[in-house]
Amino acid sequence: MRDVAVVGVGMQKWGELWEKSLRDIFVEAALLAIEDAGVDHIDSMYIGCMSSGLFVYQEHIGSLLADYLGVRPIPATRIESACASGGASLRAGFIEVASGMSDIVLAGGVEKMTDVGGDEVTFALGTAADQEYEGFSGVTFPGIYAMIAKRHMHEFGTTPEQLAQVAVKNHNNGSMNPLAQFPMKITVEQVLNSVMVADPLHILDCSPITDGAAAAIICSVDIAKKLGKPIIKIIGSAQATDTIALHQRDDITRMRSTERAAEEAYRMAGKKPEDIDIAEVHDCFTIAEICITEALGFVERGKGGGFVESGATALDGRIPINTSGGLKSKGHPVGATGIAQIVEVVHQLRGEAGERQVKNARVGLTQNMGGSGGSAVVHILEAE
Amino acid sequence: MRDVAVVGVGMQKWGELWEKSLRDIFVEAALLAIEDAGVDHIDSMYIGCMSSGLFVYQEHIGSLLADYLGVRPIPATRIESACASGGASLRAGFIEVASGMSDIVLAGGVEKMTDVGGDEVTFALGTAADQEYEGFSGVTFPGIYAMIAKRHMHEFGTTPEQLAQVAVKNHNNGSMNPLAQFPMKITVEQVLNSVMVADPLHILDCSPITDGAAAAIICSVDIAKKLGKPIIKIIGSAQATDTIALHQRDDITRMRSTERAAEEAYRMAGKKPEDIDIAEVHDCFTIAEICITEALGFVERGKGGGFVESGATALDGRIPINTSGGLKSKGHPVGATGIAQIVEVVHQLRGEAGERQVKNARVGLTQNMGGSGGSAVVHILEAE
Repeated sequence: MRDVAVVGVGMQKWGELWEKSLRDIFVEAALLAIEDAGVDHIDSMYIGCMSSGLFVYQEHIGSLLADYLGVRPIPATRIESACASGGASLRAGFIEVASGMSDIVLAGGVEKMTDVGGDEVTFALGTAADQEYEGFSGVTFPGIYAMIAKRHMHEFGTTPEQLAQVAVKNHNNGSMNPLAQFPMKITVEQVLNSVMVADPLHILDCSPITDGAAAAIICSVDIAKKLGKPIIKIIGSAQATDTIALHQRDDITRMRSTERAAEEAYRMAGKKPEDIDIAEVHDCFTIAEICITEALGFVERGKGGGFVESGATALDGRIPINTSGGLKSKGHPVGATGIAQIVEVVHQLRGEAGERQVKNARVGLTQNMGGSGGSAVVHILEAE
Repeated sequence: MRDVAVVGVGMQKWGELWEKSLRDIFVEAALLAIEDAGVDHIDSMYIGCMSSGLFVYQEHIGSLLADYLGVRPIPATRIESACASGGASLRAGFIEVASGMSDIVLAGGVEKMTDVGGDEVTFALGTAADQEYEGFSGVTFPGIYAMIAKRHMHEFGTTPEQLAQVAVKNHNNGSMNPLAQFPMKITVEQVLNSVMVADPLHILDCSPITDGAAAAIICSVDIAKKLGKPIIKIIGSAQATDTIALHQRDDITRMRSTERAAEEAYRMAGKKPEDIDIAEVHDCFTIAEICITEALGFVERGKGGGFVESGATALDGRIPINTSGGLKSKGHPVGATGIAQIVEVVHQLRGEAGERQVKNARVGLTQNMGGSGGSAVVHILEAE
């Protein structure tokens, strides 16, 4: 397998982009990534998207977006693994370049979520859970993560204040990210006093509904060198699955697909958790970030709540997590999220993260997750 | 890139499988393929599926199906390119094995289309067309292919009888395939007297609505040799895109994505159209097979109608096409079709096709297409 680098990344300011369609927002992000990379063509394209069928009544978006981007007739394929679609898209592109099949591949992600009503959005998101055993019983994702949170609190003494700390930290980071959907700083009190969605999760424990796209240009390291771009290598890429239904798991506080993908990515990269300088993780709900921090090996199991409370995951902490603002503040257009994590890590490893730059960041990790952890994708990137 | 072989294939009898769910039918086909291959594990899995979101309200099916197949926690990803999802799934698996990332990969496809009402099926299928410029104007796929047929008749003198010949040939082949949904033989008169769907396409010019799945096990040739299985190598794999909307094309009778993918697959395989012994092509409507026969270079442009009429594409013809019965007779569960084409070609190249066996078949081609040709995937397989 050939060495692979990310040479360009792009995304627009995320939010409720009512004046733009799915094809508009994807093309916008893709052009930014192509410009950033300085490439004059791409050989192939992957697009992570969870549910264009239910959100905008459009499947077949690989071809559609290749056409609107002006790169037809290159191969273009949609990749879906619920909210982990973006991470899986990057991985598909990584494998294609590593194989030698293509030299320059665009791995993107997109979701247009605000063109349908709120009920439809909730329904569409619910299709990431097991429809026959969860959806049809009426549970939606806030309820699923609330159960995980309750159990984590019961077993490990995690507190609502600790959950809130995740949101406070990520909004603080997001306040320095000009592309974030909700860049306002918030306090623990504000989180705890915000409306309850599913006990113990308040609305400020939840990531928002977002329109957005992100794109990355990946190529062989040989080509990256010719482009004269900073070499940000993908040194680990792994994906794993778990049951998609919560009731089938023996321990709902463990994110086993993340544990498995992380183990494999660390092995491939020759790194350990303590070698990671920054991480972007899938904080769809505050409790998710706590469980993931544990699953990635950054902290002992059950200690994730205290870890965030200690400041260890803050910008100036031992392992800054979600320097971009995370899903919580930056927004969560589900299919695009995994690629936006790559955008942030590349900016950090290049030293281009502005106010939120982490000093001497050389190795970054991304963890993108589908549903309540039915799938997970972990990548490790290193600046040469 | 390593050499890659298909060592196992499986599918069930297709039809209206009301007593089974999407997960049931996928697992059924996957187990048949695994048994056929004789492998004791798989490393990774791809599932081609066009619209589980709109057909059964379930996304995230990679993880769901890995779990129900009993192969969790391996990576499992859904691949979507409308009706070309199956072909794109095989291609993803091919690239992964060729890269060395995995040794044994299951590439499957599935669609459960009969759990929703007829209007919903038509709507879901319509999402393979450009919703903003085609769907919202009210056109559905029979209408789109009817326009292509009208133009082909106008330009080249193609006749309704020639269109009907495609259906007659494919149903004749399907009558020898125990897994076909509609294995009855039909006559040209029956086609021409069947109800008109969109002039000039009668209902017997159209492929049916089908529940079904198919799976293929692919691995490195080294492993295939150890398994002691017949070596059926994938020697060409290519994918291409076109506009997904018909009105954007300068010539609607040309399947340019197929032309492009075929050109690339022939180049990769070191083969020419005349080297192909059998082909499974995307006859979603009778006119499609005629245009595709031309796009693959089996006959001169405009001569596809006369070609089928001459018997050249019959079982005992110069280039037997759709020996399985094709989408027309075997059925068309959209995401599974591309993999079922591989099932047939592998059976033919192994000499296991029973009554419909083509003598001395050594090289087979599959052509799988999305929408009205917005995407196309071409594979070339050779028996060692």
